[in-house]
Amino acid sequence: MNNFFLNMAYEEAKKSYENDEIPVGCVIVKDNKIIASAHNCKESSKNSIMHAELLAVDRACKAVGDWRLDDCEIYTTLEPCMMCMGAIIESRIRTIYYGTICKNERMFDINKLNNRKIDIINLSDKRCSDILSDFFKNKRKN
Amino acid sequence: MNNFFLNMAYEEAKKSYENDEIPVGCVIVKDNKIIASAHNCKESSKNSIMHAELLAVDRACKAVGDWRLDDCEIYTTLEPCMMCMGAIIESRIRTIYYGTICKNERMFDINKLNNRKIDIINLSDKRCSDILSDFFKNKRKN
Repeated sequence: MNNFFLNMAYEEAKKSYENDEIPVGCVIVKDNKIIASAHNCKESSKNSIMHAELLAVDRACKAVGDWRLDDCEIYTTLEPCMMCMGAIIESRIRTIYYGTICKNERMFDINKLNNRKIDIINLSDKRCSDILSDFFKNKRKN
Repeated sequence: MNNFFLNMAYEEAKKSYENDEIPVGCVIVKDNKIIASAHNCKESSKNSIMHAELLAVDRACKAVGDWRLDDCEIYTTLEPCMMCMGAIIESRIRTIYYGTICKNERMFDINKLNNRKIDIINLSDKRCSDILSDFFKNKRKN
């Protein structure tokens, strides 16, 4: 099912791309069903918390009616930033699949996350990195 | 002015305490005026992102109409968690004052934050730690 859910996250990332936003998309899955999906809309919302994963955690909590999402998994096209990784941890999601590594400096300590038995799995999906490269290439061109 | 703004953050923390929430409060300041304030309401909202600092960043972005808060300062009663520290960094706030240190394991790398020229200042305020101790003491009693 990994490919299916990452594909749905990718479909979300495309929405960001079409809105001239850094293309990142994400879904949260419970019992093999998507309970929340979101895409980055930081620029259009003029709000720095409007990253895909944070929005998805917010929506998943509302869908479940609980801040605990410990039986959920998250699929995101890009390795989460510190804020989003923190939101995932706060909600007790234990399995994080991401499509491609983030090239920015990592601000959190991945070993401390592993100590907490959080699985962080890089699915190395070429489309997830390509959509980001395309976005930044176009930005530089314009 | 540090005392004044930390006091306002403490007044927010008292609201959490009264609602049986871990007492953390926060204000964001621009040009010596409070533009956003918030308190932790994770339990009552059943939503893991509803920490004081994250809510305050959200409100400050809305107040300013921009995701960039680089001319703002944040005052929070407790050293921020990874999610909230990430939200503060995403919004480019450069000065963080906090009332008391967080005793949980720190998941982010404080040296990497210092490398980005973010000032993180512990104001060592006894009331900010006392309200937390009182809260957890009462929790254990009940």
